[in-house]
Amino acid sequence: MKHNFGAGPCILPKEVFQEASQAVIEFNNTGLSILEISHRSKEFEQVVVEAEALVRELLNVPADYSVLFLQGGASQQFAMVPMNLLPEGGKAAYLDTGVWATKAAKEASKLGHVEIVASSSDKNYTYIPKDYSVPSDAAYFHFTSNNTIYGTEVFERPNVGIPVVSDMSSDIFSRVIDVSEYDLIYAGAQKNMGPAGVTLVIIKNELLGKSGRTIPAIFDYQAHAKAGSMYNTPPVYSIYVSMLNLRWLKAKGGVSVIEQENIVKARTLYEEIDRNTLFKGTADKDDRSRMNITFVMENPEQEAAFLELAKERGLVGIKGHRSVGGFRASVYNALTISSINALVDAMREFEENTVK
Amino acid sequence: MKHNFGAGPCILPKEVFQEASQAVIEFNNTGLSILEISHRSKEFEQVVVEAEALVRELLNVPADYSVLFLQGGASQQFAMVPMNLLPEGGKAAYLDTGVWATKAAKEASKLGHVEIVASSSDKNYTYIPKDYSVPSDAAYFHFTSNNTIYGTEVFERPNVGIPVVSDMSSDIFSRVIDVSEYDLIYAGAQKNMGPAGVTLVIIKNELLGKSGRTIPAIFDYQAHAKAGSMYNTPPVYSIYVSMLNLRWLKAKGGVSVIEQENIVKARTLYEEIDRNTLFKGTADKDDRSRMNITFVMENPEQEAAFLELAKERGLVGIKGHRSVGGFRASVYNALTISSINALVDAMREFEENTVK
Repeated sequence: MKHNFGAGPCILPKEVFQEASQAVIEFNNTGLSILEISHRSKEFEQVVVEAEALVRELLNVPADYSVLFLQGGASQQFAMVPMNLLPEGGKAAYLDTGVWATKAAKEASKLGHVEIVASSSDKNYTYIPKDYSVPSDAAYFHFTSNNTIYGTEVFERPNVGIPVVSDMSSDIFSRVIDVSEYDLIYAGAQKNMGPAGVTLVIIKNELLGKSGRTIPAIFDYQAHAKAGSMYNTPPVYSIYVSMLNLRWLKAKGGVSVIEQENIVKARTLYEEIDRNTLFKGTADKDDRSRMNITFVMENPEQEAAFLELAKERGLVGIKGHRSVGGFRASVYNALTISSINALVDAMREFEENTVK
Repeated sequence: MKHNFGAGPCILPKEVFQEASQAVIEFNNTGLSILEISHRSKEFEQVVVEAEALVRELLNVPADYSVLFLQGGASQQFAMVPMNLLPEGGKAAYLDTGVWATKAAKEASKLGHVEIVASSSDKNYTYIPKDYSVPSDAAYFHFTSNNTIYGTEVFERPNVGIPVVSDMSSDIFSRVIDVSEYDLIYAGAQKNMGPAGVTLVIIKNELLGKSGRTIPAIFDYQAHAKAGSMYNTPPVYSIYVSMLNLRWLKAKGGVSVIEQENIVKARTLYEEIDRNTLFKGTADKDDRSRMNITFVMENPEQEAAFLELAKERGLVGIKGHRSVGGFRASVYNALTISSINALVDAMREFEENTVK
């Protein structure tokens, strides 16, 4: 039995894997594999329709927003956002909360002026900057809602008075959000939505085609919106598995139900980190992520031994990112409380065996 | 039993589906699904390494070329090719052999001057233009090697004296090519390489980073080449299934062996089209594609009845594209001669029952 704490691509529900595996042999009584059906077949069109409907229902997406399934991951959105929203000679405001936020700003700076309104780089991104002002003449404000590497999360949308764009790759579908507070949300699928290979974009329709730039059609949100995410051959299987996973989430009761589970899971692990004399958290308590829980040992020399114990217990993917060190437990939607308990048990046992 | 003649995403070998299905439950004795493993895990890194090695071996790719696995399909390459190869104010030459070639030229024209050196639009793209001159000061010459909609194929690389770029989405791995004759080859995977969601790019290293443009990193071939196709989270499953499919091709004896099979398959069907009094081919005989075989009926009113018979026989995906009409049999690598025979039998039977 493995407990998959990997940061992404990451754990998805076993039931999803079962159905996803079966569809590779035969999809929906077509006599064909999901991998060989036409993306224009009515069977696959129905998958896209259902996937979009599930996103709309689970996140309560207002009618005047488009829901798109694209390719290229969040990294491609770092470029597509300014291509679509930043006029030539215009300015955009970015909040710097770590590597991915920095990359987003860097790519945008190739297309216009970028103002970094605040950064937590002074403390290795262990907190979320709170007091900053955003230029009112910027085309949009961009922030990363959850920072996987540092284990920090922005739970309240900053109130900035200009259009808001958020990279929600690692916490979308993990907690209730009010989509109407955002102008554009994007997310690589490979955390709580599905497998790698598809990217979700939710965009207010009034922003479509507004930058005034001449851009290739494949990078134009409007082209994808007009075509219902079928402007070109979509990533069929990644969309299909995402649809299965969103069905699973709906059957569980939706985002508000999973949010309560996520709160319990994160609290259980943080409590052990705070209680255990050998471990300590790395992020400021107020900004602790519910998705990626980062912690180190008081004595870094013990970390290798704890990793060894974790491996014995089937706890996979808990090594921390090199820029933080120690450990990172990613506790996405499909990870159960029993996996959290297995990790907590290992931490307790390690403490008992060490502190005698 | 279904015979999948779909134009793409399309048939892949049954053995590939079996292994691809199993890996969704458990991949390579990891205790984890291929859909939940980290793209940075050594198990997946090994998949990318093997996939690249198979491309290099099967196509005999010279050492001074990079082999990249990207996202976004050929449509994204329509934009990335000029972003990477066409300097500001520069010119590119395009051969217009149908819808996809036209789209490629249109996207390039957003980034510079495009000269259409020849077009077969005068005869609904039923032939490949042969006599044309290419401006020697163009940055590159672009052509589509196989035109899925019209059933035409370019078997010899045009001799043009400037760098050559080819969209080989629908015939790569179907016949022997000399990669050293090309400067850049790209192909959406979803014909003979694998499922939808990954795009192959083979580029001569000396072209990397040469356009002089400031472009987002995600669209820069050099960034992907430096990172070994891991600049960002790659489309894990699509690469994995492509690797399985290329293994299958290698086990069959490689591209030269499959080319001989493809020649026999295409000849068998074209002979019946030419023999059968009810059917006729739509493409010029000299330019007939081996991958997509387009044909209509002398009497279009009989087409619905033949489609009905085809459906009864499990012949899937043979309806022609609306811009050509009639029928299109896509006969990719994994389609066996027995499926060709089933189609030929249906054509013969239909003739016997009609011409009494």
